Amino acid sequence: MPNFSIGVDLGGTNLRIATVDESGQLLEKVTLGTKVALGKDHVIGEMCEAIRHQIEKFATTGHLFGIGIGVPGIIDMKTGTLRESPNLPGWAGTPVHKEIERRLGTRVILENDANVAALGEKWLGAARDVEDMMIFTLGTGVGGGIVIHGRILHGMTGMAGEVGHMTVEPEGHPCGCGNRGCLEQYASATAVVRMAKEAIHSGKSPNLARAAGSDPEFSAKAVYNLAIQGDEEAQKIFRRVGRALGLGLGSLVNVLNLPMYVIGGGASSAWEAFAPAMFEEIRQRSLVYAATAPATSLTGGQGASAQIEPEGPTKTLITRALLGSDAGLYGAARLPMM
Amino acid sequence: MPNFSIGVDLGGTNLRIATVDESGQLLEKVTLGTKVALGKDHVIGEMCEAIRHQIEKFATTGHLFGIGIGVPGIIDMKTGTLRESPNLPGWAGTPVHKEIERRLGTRVILENDANVAALGEKWLGAARDVEDMMIFTLGTGVGGGIVIHGRILHGMTGMAGEVGHMTVEPEGHPCGCGNRGCLEQYASATAVVRMAKEAIHSGKSPNLARAAGSDPEFSAKAVYNLAIQGDEEAQKIFRRVGRALGLGLGSLVNVLNLPMYVIGGGASSAWEAFAPAMFEEIRQRSLVYAATAPATSLTGGQGASAQIEPEGPTKTLITRALLGSDAGLYGAARLPMM
Repeated sequence: MPNFSIGVDLGGTNLRIATVDESGQLLEKVTLGTKVALGKDHVIGEMCEAIRHQIEKFATTGHLFGIGIGVPGIIDMKTGTLRESPNLPGWAGTPVHKEIERRLGTRVILENDANVAALGEKWLGAARDVEDMMIFTLGTGVGGGIVIHGRILHGMTGMAGEVGHMTVEPEGHPCGCGNRGCLEQYASATAVVRMAKEAIHSGKSPNLARAAGSDPEFSAKAVYNLAIQGDEEAQKIFRRVGRALGLGLGSLVNVLNLPMYVIGGGASSAWEAFAPAMFEEIRQRSLVYAATAPATSLTGGQGASAQIEPEGPTKTLITRALLGSDAGLYGAARLPMM
Repeated sequence: MPNFSIGVDLGGTNLRIATVDESGQLLEKVTLGTKVALGKDHVIGEMCEAIRHQIEKFATTGHLFGIGIGVPGIIDMKTGTLRESPNLPGWAGTPVHKEIERRLGTRVILENDANVAALGEKWLGAARDVEDMMIFTLGTGVGGGIVIHGRILHGMTGMAGEVGHMTVEPEGHPCGCGNRGCLEQYASATAVVRMAKEAIHSGKSPNLARAAGSDPEFSAKAVYNLAIQGDEEAQKIFRRVGRALGLGLGSLVNVLNLPMYVIGGGASSAWEAFAPAMFEEIRQRSLVYAATAPATSLTGGQGASAQIEPEGPTKTLITRALLGSDAGLYGAARLPMM
């Protein structure tokens, strides 16, 4: 009779709801579209209905810890409300969790999506054997979450982990945040597409131009496909991704000296294309990494956590996330158990 | 009858020993030269004699918590020994604290000098009203220490806080660590002198050339004096200091979202010369700072901690250290009390 909780991944496109037991076993998962256009009340209604369905189904098997919800945006940690969320227009400032608590009669915890991804990878993924870690999520933007002593580091106002806005090129590409040269401008899926368009525009890359011309939804994935097929311009783009990640990571390895840094999010599936340049940069730039790098640092990759010694970690591992898009779902489910 | 402990600041030049009671009151302080050339045993002998003298003097007034020692270098947190210390040649790898414990029969804790400075400012200085903070120490190099939930963040192998080796200019000046463009290459006293010599060499600065020619120990202080007298080239150097600090701080404010960042170390006395450029850079580069900056952010300065609200901090304060060179001494004394 395992106890369980409900994890929700409330994205701008998909709404996913899962029941996860305390051992990390997935009991059920549903994916719905997030009908943002129909308004907040509609989305909350659909979410509550799906949650209620799962709670009823598993209520006889054990105790419900509560509901954890991962959302893209900044959470006010004092009130638990959503403060800012570009992908959920109209949601900011409303006490979302109170409304859901009222409807379902159980505890609801709201958390930033990168933070729940960090927690998911820490609980069941790449970082399951360490107490301290951070994640970089490479998606439309670049997010981040830091876990210290097994718990999310929220910072003073819940804004900790904004690694996407570290400056990696002081005179670099302008960012929506007002800065220039933010990591996000080089290491997000959006940035990959932008750099590909720049290469097409410069006339240097007939292959990229062909791919973009034939694909109305030309994406980072298409650029990656060309890179692994050997296209030099596409490879150059991912070397820029790797360099930018290496610059950001190199500085953070020096400042935080964590045992593990996990690279997740959709664009992390291009790992083979960007990781060599990333590791080269980190090795050159981080004296802490140089002092603590594992022998197999070039590959990083999966199963790296097996290298951790019983008396505690002594090597800096930089590795891919293991849970894919489920990291946030597991992390959200973990919240009410902590 | 206050209880007390002994704090030691074991620098490459000076050896300072202080008795501090649990309320933070300084009861006695002595400064000796660190006779590095006479060897480790000699220095430890002198240190122990001075400590013993102070212990005996205050033994009747209260209980001795123990001895805390701040040293420049990397401490192995598992064994408490000094792993690397460029300014204390021949000390690395020896169980310094065990030797002192044996001679004095009381607990000895070794800690990195920037970490004890952070702890000192947190206990009695600029950061006394916050639980989370970090310090940048601007001296021969640039060091750093992070305090989370009132305790030093050591990281996996005791190397956390190496902010001096964050990359702030990817193609910048080479650093001894093997990287290019480390913060230390722009914001240390050493860097100020180097940049002044570069300006002299370029023929652009007759005032700096005159100052350097007349002063065999031409220092960052001399460059600062010219800057406050209005010399444009000297001012430009401190604007570069400020820009580099702003680049590093901007990224860390985004990643850590701490309530307070303290700038200490000898070169922080040039605050007036570098702070305006530093704040300008941070405001441009950090969305977290933009969301949390206090109204008086330009001046920073002393008394800033008075702005913290009773329900917890909500503003990012970036301010000068308050305890000067005593921060490390107080922080070291604090160690055995924790």
